[in-house]
Amino acid sequence: MPTMHIELFEGRSPEKKRELAAALTKETCRVLECEPGAVDIIFTDVKRENWATGGVMWSERD
Amino acid sequence: MPTMHIELFEGRSPEKKRELAAALTKETCRVLECEPGAVDIIFTDVKRENWATGGVMWSERD
Amino acid sequence: MPTMHIELFEGRSPEKKRELAAALTKETCRVLECEPGAVDIIFTDVKRENWATGGVMWSERD
Amino acid sequence: MPTMHIELFEGRSPEKKRELAAALTKETCRVLECEPGAVDIIFTDVKRENWATGGVMWSERD
Amino acid sequence: MPTMHIELFEGRSPEKKRELAAALTKETCRVLECEPGAVDIIFTDVKRENWATGGVMWSERD
Amino acid sequence: MPTMHIELFEGRSPEKKRELAAALTKETCRVLECEPGAVDIIFTDVKRENWATGGVMWSERD
Repeated sequence: MPTMHIELFEGRSPEKKRELAAALTKETCRVLECEPGAVDIIFTDVKRENWATGGVMWSERD
Repeated sequence: MPTMHIELFEGRSPEKKRELAAALTKETCRVLECEPGAVDIIFTDVKRENWATGGVMWSERD
Repeated sequence: MPTMHIELFEGRSPEKKRELAAALTKETCRVLECEPGAVDIIFTDVKRENWATGGVMWSERD
Repeated sequence: MPTMHIELFEGRSPEKKRELAAALTKETCRVLECEPGAVDIIFTDVKRENWATGGVMWSERD
Repeated sequence: MPTMHIELFEGRSPEKKRELAAALTKETCRVLECEPGAVDIIFTDVKRENWATGGVMWSERD
Repeated sequence: MPTMHIELFEGRSPEKKRELAAALTKETCRVLECEPGAVDIIFTDVKRENWATGGVMWSERD
């Protein structure tokens, strides 16, 4: 029953997320020997103005 | 101090979420014997194109 | 596909959590009109020395 | 590698979040004696109609 | 800066998680065209008595 | 009602977390102009064998 939450900067296309979800599910099933139907993946699109590293928002970086 | 995070597909009305929050708080207080004010519930609306099961996005399903 | 994460202070018995999971699932299905099998609930037991309100850890309170 | 997720009501300006991220990172590095670059902070803006306390949504309160 | 949180039943060996983290990072970088160093993965081991599906704890299933 | 979840490597003393919770709450109230009692902070201690960056677990690093 692996459940994955993936946070990434907004702007990724549905196609990219679809491709990524398929690839991550495949690898998870291969390594953990589980059924694909047991794997849930939820993407969260994060705005650069909502994510800081080192105290600086990514929207403030070049 | 139970805190609940509930992820569900977007599209649920505020009325449904209000009804659900009231019901879940009531049951939580009944079972755990705590005060209603101690229960926090946060809903997260998830797009079907952001949730995959079995490697397939829910937006791709019929 | 509602997925719930519930954080609560450690010390609740498996019986209480089992009772709570059953009750919350029932109410969720009633309000959202979904199948029980679509509801996932994950409990996280939090130590009082890991939870602060108002800047004070719960392990420091009477 | 402290990673913080901060949920707050929507409506806070980017400037406020920027100021808060800088302040929290500074305090975290001071107390934990770590490098600023090791601190990640992700803000989540929550609508008042998605947050309940005591079974009542914040959008229903005065 | 993709950050992944993976919840899975406790009992997986460190070797399995290590193998999975490497595979998921590789696939993420391939699909999203990002640097490996930008990918963080955090595993959370969940007890079967803390995870319910359909209102039934996994510790109660055969 | 800011709620913070802070993930950090296990091994930090209760005293350090207590000091950090007090400092973060103070800064949050100063910047957001809210009451201390509105701020919840939950720490999650993460084992180095459960956290990977760049596909390598922190337990594997020097």
